[in-house]
Amino acid sequence: MKTQDIARDFVALLKEGRHDEAAAAHNAENIASYENMDGPMAVCHGKEAVKKKSEWWVGAHEVHEMKTEGPYLNGDQFAVSFYVDVTVKETGERRKMTEIGLYTVDHGKIVEERFFY
Amino acid sequence: MKTQDIARDFVALLKEGRHDEAAAAHNAENIASYENMDGPMAVCHGKEAVKKKSEWWVGAHEVHEMKTEGPYLNGDQFAVSFYVDVTVKETGERRKMTEIGLYTVDHGKIVEERFFY
Repeated sequence: MKTQDIARDFVALLKEGRHDEAAAAHNAENIASYENMDGPMAVCHGKEAVKKKSEWWVGAHEVHEMKTEGPYLNGDQFAVSFYVDVTVKETGERRKMTEIGLYTVDHGKIVEERFFY
Repeated sequence: MKTQDIARDFVALLKEGRHDEAAAAHNAENIASYENMDGPMAVCHGKEAVKKKSEWWVGAHEVHEMKTEGPYLNGDQFAVSFYVDVTVKETGERRKMTEIGLYTVDHGKIVEERFFY
């Protein structure tokens, strides 16, 4: 699959809330995932670790609204815009924020995801 | 300046429509600029070439609306979201689109800009 086809399929699944399926179908086994923070959570490696991070996030937040826009293409990368309105379960904090995801494709799989916020 | 300070100053200028000043203040002399296309326009190198590309864009479009959101941060990179509503002067085509700009900072200057659409 071309990067633009992967991007469109991946984002179509995200827009339907099917995040697990999107990751299962398109993430590479050796994917690296980068967050905007210091310390050990800044990067995680591997499809299974990314899945666990995603499960942690889902468990830690009550999601009131999530809007997904894109994909926006350039070469072997694509960007996705996320608007989320969540309550952090542990603290009760209501958080509304926009986040940009940047995805890099190699050999038909997403080998890197990097989040900006 | 830290990347987040550069990002905030750069985007504050963009939000005021002061694109020339933003580029003059923060672009590195050796900046590389990547568009989502094939061929010779896909990349241009150098602050002066990027300035010329920007001047071409301004001359080629009638801008009805431009909304700039961000910056969204991660390490030495930041992303910016642009919504533009323009008429392409040559063809009369009205075009409304969202574009993501990804900027990379090194030694306090923007050394790369990459546009996704």
